[in-house]
Amino acid sequence: MGAIDGSAGEKVIASLAAIAPDLGRFIIEFAFGDIYTRQALDLHTRELVTVAALAAMGNARPQLKVHTHGFLNVGGSREELVELVIHTAPYAGFPRAINAALAVQEVLAERKGGVH
Amino acid sequence: MGAIDGSAGEKVIASLAAIAPDLGRFIIEFAFGDIYTRQALDLHTRELVTVAALAAMGNARPQLKVHTHGFLNVGGSREELVELVIHTAPYAGFPRAINAALAVQEVLAERKGGVH
Amino acid sequence: MGAIDGSAGEKVIASLAAIAPDLGRFIIEFAFGDIYTRQALDLHTRELVTVAALAAMGNARPQLKVHTHGFLNVGGSREELVELVIHTAPYAGFPRAINAALAVQEVLAERKGGVH
Amino acid sequence: MGAIDGSAGEKVIASLAAIAPDLGRFIIEFAFGDIYTRQALDLHTRELVTVAALAAMGNARPQLKVHTHGFLNVGGSREELVELVIHTAPYAGFPRAINAALAVQEVLAERKGGVH
Amino acid sequence: MGAIDGSAGEKVIASLAAIAPDLGRFIIEFAFGDIYTRQALDLHTRELVTVAALAAMGNARPQLKVHTHGFLNVGGSREELVELVIHTAPYAGFPRAINAALAVQEVLAERKGGVH
Amino acid sequence: MGAIDGSAGEKVIASLAAIAPDLGRFIIEFAFGDIYTRQALDLHTRELVTVAALAAMGNARPQLKVHTHGFLNVGGSREELVELVIHTAPYAGFPRAINAALAVQEVLAERKGGVH
Repeated sequence: MGAIDGSAGEKVIASLAAIAPDLGRFIIEFAFGDIYTRQALDLHTRELVTVAALAAMGNARPQLKVHTHGFLNVGGSREELVELVIHTAPYAGFPRAINAALAVQEVLAERKGGVH
Repeated sequence: MGAIDGSAGEKVIASLAAIAPDLGRFIIEFAFGDIYTRQALDLHTRELVTVAALAAMGNARPQLKVHTHGFLNVGGSREELVELVIHTAPYAGFPRAINAALAVQEVLAERKGGVH
Repeated sequence: MGAIDGSAGEKVIASLAAIAPDLGRFIIEFAFGDIYTRQALDLHTRELVTVAALAAMGNARPQLKVHTHGFLNVGGSREELVELVIHTAPYAGFPRAINAALAVQEVLAERKGGVH
Repeated sequence: MGAIDGSAGEKVIASLAAIAPDLGRFIIEFAFGDIYTRQALDLHTRELVTVAALAAMGNARPQLKVHTHGFLNVGGSREELVELVIHTAPYAGFPRAINAALAVQEVLAERKGGVH
Repeated sequence: MGAIDGSAGEKVIASLAAIAPDLGRFIIEFAFGDIYTRQALDLHTRELVTVAALAAMGNARPQLKVHTHGFLNVGGSREELVELVIHTAPYAGFPRAINAALAVQEVLAERKGGVH
Repeated sequence: MGAIDGSAGEKVIASLAAIAPDLGRFIIEFAFGDIYTRQALDLHTRELVTVAALAAMGNARPQLKVHTHGFLNVGGSREELVELVIHTAPYAGFPRAINAALAVQEVLAERKGGVH
């Protein structure tokens, strides 16, 4: 998980340490241990799919930001990221696409400021 | 759109012809004319993102089936498709992943029976 | 409620009679007794708002059909109804708009066949 | 899982066997192996919570039916079940509560007919 | 769009200018150019429908505020606005209605402070 | 309502007093007057169900916090509360479970600081 979501992902697990450490453990074991290690999709595609799913669901802003970091950490480009968000507009509507675009913008600003 | 979603996509537009033909026209003009023609993501990635978004939203079964056809029509594999659905489980929950997997299975059966 | 949703609304209450009659009673008392009787919006506007909300939420097809009947019963036109559905597309996405359009089409067919 | 959801749960895993057997395996390992075995909530409460969550989400009808069977299988009563659904109405709205009540009614009918 | 959503709408497009200017362009071209210009519903009804849809979807607070401004800008009254939000409660549940009411209250305060 | 949700619940009604007092009245009359007073589920179970439903819906953070206070006010334990949130993860996905866990943590901190 460190390799993918970097310090943003580690902060999620740390934020759960006091209230629900087992939830953090299940995220690591199930999402990262069981799912991300499978061969049928590479990491770039997995993070692309995750960003699309979270943008379309529209009520998971903190997680959308973590996986936007993740997508960039595994080599995704800013151009792909923005296009991905635009692509969700006809399916999930403009409000979710706008909100996702602004979350992506925040992530890009954080990375300029040194957060990865 | 014919190139991507094939007869499944054409049926959508046809199904709208009697009740809301302009809605069908907007889908063609905006989703396919404005969005799919952009260069920043290729068609394979666009259909992959669409399937992920629709599976995660969980209330768009007919459209999930149309774009599952679309993903296969632009060269996506069955293996990627199933993995994509499994990947949404930690983000959108098992119920949506199960329902998406069964929709994908229906599409694969339709294609064996000659629907593209 | 009979005046608004007609036989379609009565069928809802009847369908709940065996399993959860109090739920049916609360719908009549709260939704129709407390809310619909208020003066600040007329019935035409209330049913228009209800159809828009249900179309945008996207997981309430039976209720969308009941209130499509309701909108037509209080004098709404087919043209307004279709336009209303098209109007939700940029906000809720094409899949929900398509599914709502097809639900409206079913209602119009039922009314031709004598269901009100 | 057999003890909780009975034949309804087994059918879910069987339905995934041809298309996505690993998804079925993750449901057994994570949902039932990791989560249901924890001591902090008993099985009756876990199935009650599951039914409430699925009713409120409103787009997981097949799973709502499986866990309605599950709730009854671990000793929940019909009266609790109906009340649970009524209780979700002020939070998730009447349409989801109505749809959940009708799904519960189907499950009760299936059990009279011998499905558990 | 300026005529409807005023400075609140212009801020949306401006906020997208750095990250996804084409998304802003599609909103103007498709939502405002293609949809709002159609004759079958007047602007007052269109903004009423938009507010209802966004309140019922419940995860688009910034857009709900923009279109609350829009509804007031095209001549909608505060009384209609509040009633509209109350009307969504039986369909979308009290939590979404409460959150929408508080968003409306913020808009009314902004307008007293000179934001339109 | 005072007995269940305490000062957190009273603040909700107070927050609506200026913008939509009738919405506050309906919450008291329908949710608390009609629903909570019914005998088929006790208050502990009702608040447990409410927390689960709001956590799974994922777009009602303020209400999730009010009812987390409510659950603790009617004798629910911190351990049950955390387990309840973990239990929703396989059904509603990790993002909603994480966000609910952090909302619960905020409530626990507020109560240490004297908010009930």
